[in-house]
Amino acid sequence: MQIGLIGLGKMGYNLALNLQDHGHGVVAFDIAKENIDAIAADGVTPAYTIPELAQKLSGRKAVWVMVPAGAPMDAVIAELVPHLSKGDIIIDGGNSNYKDSVARAEKLATSGIYLLDCGTSGGLDGARNGACTMIGGDPQAFAYCEQIFKDVSVEKGYLYVGAPGSGHYVKMIHNGVEYGMMQAIAEGFEVLHKSEYDINYKEVARVWNHGSVVRSWLMELVENAFSKDPELSGIKGIMHSSGEGKWTLETALDMQVATPVIAMSVLMRYRSFESDTFSGKVVAALRNEFGGHKVEKAD
Amino acid sequence: MQIGLIGLGKMGYNLALNLQDHGHGVVAFDIAKENIDAIAADGVTPAYTIPELAQKLSGRKAVWVMVPAGAPMDAVIAELVPHLSKGDIIIDGGNSNYKDSVARAEKLATSGIYLLDCGTSGGLDGARNGACTMIGGDPQAFAYCEQIFKDVSVEKGYLYVGAPGSGHYVKMIHNGVEYGMMQAIAEGFEVLHKSEYDINYKEVARVWNHGSVVRSWLMELVENAFSKDPELSGIKGIMHSSGEGKWTLETALDMQVATPVIAMSVLMRYRSFESDTFSGKVVAALRNEFGGHKVEKAD
Repeated sequence: MQIGLIGLGKMGYNLALNLQDHGHGVVAFDIAKENIDAIAADGVTPAYTIPELAQKLSGRKAVWVMVPAGAPMDAVIAELVPHLSKGDIIIDGGNSNYKDSVARAEKLATSGIYLLDCGTSGGLDGARNGACTMIGGDPQAFAYCEQIFKDVSVEKGYLYVGAPGSGHYVKMIHNGVEYGMMQAIAEGFEVLHKSEYDINYKEVARVWNHGSVVRSWLMELVENAFSKDPELSGIKGIMHSSGEGKWTLETALDMQVATPVIAMSVLMRYRSFESDTFSGKVVAALRNEFGGHKVEKAD
Repeated sequence: MQIGLIGLGKMGYNLALNLQDHGHGVVAFDIAKENIDAIAADGVTPAYTIPELAQKLSGRKAVWVMVPAGAPMDAVIAELVPHLSKGDIIIDGGNSNYKDSVARAEKLATSGIYLLDCGTSGGLDGARNGACTMIGGDPQAFAYCEQIFKDVSVEKGYLYVGAPGSGHYVKMIHNGVEYGMMQAIAEGFEVLHKSEYDINYKEVARVWNHGSVVRSWLMELVENAFSKDPELSGIKGIMHSSGEGKWTLETALDMQVATPVIAMSVLMRYRSFESDTFSGKVVAALRNEFGGHKVEKAD
């Protein structure tokens, strides 16, 4: 089927090629002209404005939007909606907060436009060669687009979850689980690293990927990373994040659900931003005040 | 090659069959006569005492011991050693504490006997059809037994780590990582469970196993569990443990390494033993003392 695609970042660009490979007629727009030129050279129909994109789509329109969560998503929707008609479908394939997706779906419904919230996992390789997608929203709108989700995903790799927001909700939690799994793996290698044994991390990751209980795609990625840089000496241990772990924790807090591992995974990311901490100074100062314990002077 | 096997529990029994399938001449002993009879019926050479087992092994002896960590392992070694000669090899394939393995290797070395400490992962299916093994100890003793490890493991699934204790050290940390990954997965499903969305857990596990970042053997096991009992309503959430997670945490504490996720995974297991806690009573009482906040009366 014909599909519009807005946002040709790393994920969106690969997704456009993936859709095209499956025989869909993709019309693509991006805020950066060079990205549109590049995807046009790859055979995708270019659109240099959002109205042009809408104009090049005939019949009932479906537009996959792959832009950063928050204001960029709102801006795209606001610009797109005047060019859509009742029954048309916007697919938010990004990492929007599920509460935003619920609110947007409700607002768009007043114009008869459907929002499908689609959590997309699997990284760049997934977007290009087969992702994992979790979809929420109107069931008829989903049915209209199901072939799209089936085609961009690996076999058995798409799920219609249910009500609006539920796709992004499940994806958010997927990322919370991912944070915890990553931190668990990382702590294990930290204990290996600090030990007196002379341990080849890449070989440990390799053996753990063959027959062990912890075998996983993340462990394979760790093995890849150690095979390129055996001690990871070329990078700093600063752990950025893009929001979903924090949202999972916030959701758990709102529902009063005990999720200490996900909480610690998020907090350790924040800890990694600082080489020294004010809280550390406070504890050191207190130990000195009550017990005369030694403090280390600042440089 | 010929190999002795002591301990025909679930792991040891499967391992004996696995070894036999690979053409090794297995002589097996267990404290329970019925287990020896059963394995004899499966074609393995039975030994009804440890001396008999040693007597049935010719030349340089290698004996795989698969018994619970701690006192049972010490008892088996004590009974076995008088029947071994200089150069013979004991393989501890269980979950011994790596410090015990270091001490045992040192003690056995005074008699010229080698101890290989072998961490074995992959569960019962692994023991039967291909495990993941991590081995520490004397390199020549390892070389003598390498074919054994290669045969009982999946392809690429064995690793000679290094010095005595290092096999069990790496296995211990494997289990610490496993605790963290399991708790992360579990917390994710808890947040799914508490949400207002009507979510099919088995379907979520299924889609996460196809193309997502969190795809893993543990997620496949979760999918299996939900396919048998969609809400896990038939079991209690009491999380027992067999020591390695605690040892990983103790090791991290001794080395002053921050492992909050592994720590929380261990502590949440202990929390699961109690339906109410004394610490909870203390906090409730304190809130009542300073703020007059309501407490809930005991039944």
